[in-house]
Amino acid sequence: MASPRQVGPSNYFNPASIDALPEGTANLVRRRLATLGPAYRLFYDEPVEFVRGSGVHLYDVAGNEYLDVYNNVASCGHAHPRVAAAIAQQAATLSTHTRYLNQAIVRYSEDLLATMPDAIGHVMYTCTGSEACDLALRIAKHRTGGTGVIVTRNAYHGVTTEIAAISPSLGGVESLPPWVRWVPAPDSAHTDISGCSSLGEWFADQVQQQIDDLAAHGIRFAAFIADSIFASDGVFSDPVGFLAPVRAVIEAAGGVYIADEVQPGFGRTGSAMWGFDRHSSAEQPFVPDLVTIGKPMGNGMPIAATLMRPEVIEEFARDMRYFNTYGGNAMAIAAAQAVLDVIRDEGLQANAADVGDYLRRALRELATRYPHIADVRGDGLFIAVELVIPESGEPNEALMLSVVNGLRRRRVLIGTAGLLNNNLKVRPPLVFSRADADRFVSELDGALAESTVTS
Amino acid sequence: MASPRQVGPSNYFNPASIDALPEGTANLVRRRLATLGPAYRLFYDEPVEFVRGSGVHLYDVAGNEYLDVYNNVASCGHAHPRVAAAIAQQAATLSTHTRYLNQAIVRYSEDLLATMPDAIGHVMYTCTGSEACDLALRIAKHRTGGTGVIVTRNAYHGVTTEIAAISPSLGGVESLPPWVRWVPAPDSAHTDISGCSSLGEWFADQVQQQIDDLAAHGIRFAAFIADSIFASDGVFSDPVGFLAPVRAVIEAAGGVYIADEVQPGFGRTGSAMWGFDRHSSAEQPFVPDLVTIGKPMGNGMPIAATLMRPEVIEEFARDMRYFNTYGGNAMAIAAAQAVLDVIRDEGLQANAADVGDYLRRALRELATRYPHIADVRGDGLFIAVELVIPESGEPNEALMLSVVNGLRRRRVLIGTAGLLNNNLKVRPPLVFSRADADRFVSELDGALAESTVTS
Repeated sequence: MASPRQVGPSNYFNPASIDALPEGTANLVRRRLATLGPAYRLFYDEPVEFVRGSGVHLYDVAGNEYLDVYNNVASCGHAHPRVAAAIAQQAATLSTHTRYLNQAIVRYSEDLLATMPDAIGHVMYTCTGSEACDLALRIAKHRTGGTGVIVTRNAYHGVTTEIAAISPSLGGVESLPPWVRWVPAPDSAHTDISGCSSLGEWFADQVQQQIDDLAAHGIRFAAFIADSIFASDGVFSDPVGFLAPVRAVIEAAGGVYIADEVQPGFGRTGSAMWGFDRHSSAEQPFVPDLVTIGKPMGNGMPIAATLMRPEVIEEFARDMRYFNTYGGNAMAIAAAQAVLDVIRDEGLQANAADVGDYLRRALRELATRYPHIADVRGDGLFIAVELVIPESGEPNEALMLSVVNGLRRRRVLIGTAGLLNNNLKVRPPLVFSRADADRFVSELDGALAESTVTS
Repeated sequence: MASPRQVGPSNYFNPASIDALPEGTANLVRRRLATLGPAYRLFYDEPVEFVRGSGVHLYDVAGNEYLDVYNNVASCGHAHPRVAAAIAQQAATLSTHTRYLNQAIVRYSEDLLATMPDAIGHVMYTCTGSEACDLALRIAKHRTGGTGVIVTRNAYHGVTTEIAAISPSLGGVESLPPWVRWVPAPDSAHTDISGCSSLGEWFADQVQQQIDDLAAHGIRFAAFIADSIFASDGVFSDPVGFLAPVRAVIEAAGGVYIADEVQPGFGRTGSAMWGFDRHSSAEQPFVPDLVTIGKPMGNGMPIAATLMRPEVIEEFARDMRYFNTYGGNAMAIAAAQAVLDVIRDEGLQANAADVGDYLRRALRELATRYPHIADVRGDGLFIAVELVIPESGEPNEALMLSVVNGLRRRRVLIGTAGLLNNNLKVRPPLVFSRADADRFVSELDGALAESTVTS
């Protein structure tokens, strides 16, 4: 295995700066380094210690309140009482595995499958999105007899050996094994699609070229996998429908389409429960072969899943059994059921649509005062704010880092997205309100004002 | 990827028998098949639905109490109040990830590392044993620059693509890729070690042969990985010390030793907190390069970990970062801390030693009346009871299946172990008492009496 390198810097704490931290923080960081070792990263120039969360807020050890615009696991809000109660009740009752019968897993599975197109008929449970993508790829390879996998330029799908190998955001495209090919992301803001009738046609053509190249090298095509909102590539959501042409290309080549919904799923995009469904139309429904889900699924409880068209699992089920000790255990299912109920009962998808629209309008308004903001894109509460050098239009990573750390000082938590580290990733819990959006935009204004004066 | 086949039948429900089940059970099994699909398995000729657990007992939907001699995840006992309270408290407070600072993960890590040899300095968190083994192997390959892995004949280490590929218990040794080699398990009961001074020397010689064969095929050796009690191979625990010689062989070849403690860890073997430590002596301490832990770690909460000598992670940390969204999250750590505290405060390791000894004596006593029992082996509460055809001494899989289903009717839950499906796997929660052992032996006596009359 070639040594992958980390692509680009990011908003991580540099352990060389440990002595500059407040004494209490420095001591905790030292103990952490001593025990967890050097492969772990902390956010921010000054790492922050949280002790409590509620709704869209996290509270540090001194009791300061932070507005959370980053954490997409706690989609129902931090420490949601209904989810916490479901977990507490189940932990005190039973938590066994899927080799015994259990009503709850069947009921939840029926409920979950009802949110998907009819053709998606089965669900298999894992504990993490990494495991869900790993299982999807394992099934895809078994199904097709192929090994070739196509991903996007800065894709991230997880950390198992197999999935890290198809995640160029971890080690760069230079580190990809020969059976993995990459295509540029469908970046509507920066792609020259001249010669093609649409971004979708252009994207399908990119994928076809890689399918052909795999064939030319004697590697049988197995799967195309994409995050339906292309989060790590920079958040590419529009024009809706652009995923339809690539679907046809993959089917024609005998491969399977894996929709990674770990990031866009569970209503985050507002306009649909699942990111792939945004690309459906009445004339042309978009149905993947396999779907992976995770992160917000348990609002903090480790649970994830792989869903599929029944025909895709036939050969695998004939040749193999599947078991994941904790996957689909009673406690994880209790959490997941509560999350799905909360998303419905509290109208979180509609809220994501409403507040997302409101927030994008406010951010575009802000952009009229900051030429550093080149683009505001996304859907629902998955938004990228692209930062550039005004004079040249070049990516402005320095400004991004300054703004992220400035927002942390202003008690607003945010992350970054994209190959060139110049997008703010706006991805709050789905209970985010218009007032929260106002607070965020106001603090972003302040951080931008400070950063653009000093940088 | 070649089509692996399932090795040997096991005590799984056959879906062809669905119409023979009681109506309520049949309906639930049908709904389960419809949603979870065909790759899942259920235990027993008549699958059982549990709704509640407490200590060593599980309760079915009709309120019947079962003695649990199978479940090793709930090592502290089902729904342990202290663990459930810790989970409930944390779920209602905070559950975030490792990119923020948190006291609890550092405190737990210090506590956990204190149970290991001093040379094991770091711990990295995952959600499942599969992920822990996958990460260990990823680190090992990165460290050594090699790809060659050596496992035992019927090893099981997990279900990610990479780890399924080194788990011949899933698909048979025929399905192993070229970079995976196998050695016979160190089976003290059935191995002809003539020509060697000890089982350990014989085992080291087997591993050396595979290291040499890898080299002859131009494949660089990366790692040897073994479950320290060889659970899926049939439970091989003695003579203690037999792992020492293989350690030296691996070190000399420049590979790393990965101790998979997912099954024997956390005090189950009674004589040691960790399975590898059973093979230590004052003159020759046994210290692996990497250790993987899981299953009982959270008593039902998904949490697992990879521990290591600090030098093993250096190259990986230089070239890669590591992040697992749920791995080491606050809720999982709260559960793990409660489990470690319960193991200590309730003296579960000492109980495993005491009750395990008592139980093995009782099982050996039973064996004097049943020539079908060829061997009783193991340590603490990890015991194999080997069943044979008395006349020939051949493995008796039919009897094993009859006894497992007979015990289920007698409301005792038990599993199977070993390549030839002829071992009962005795692996109850660690709160198992001498009275529980008496009940188990009495019911086993009954099931054997029935089965040996009718079979």
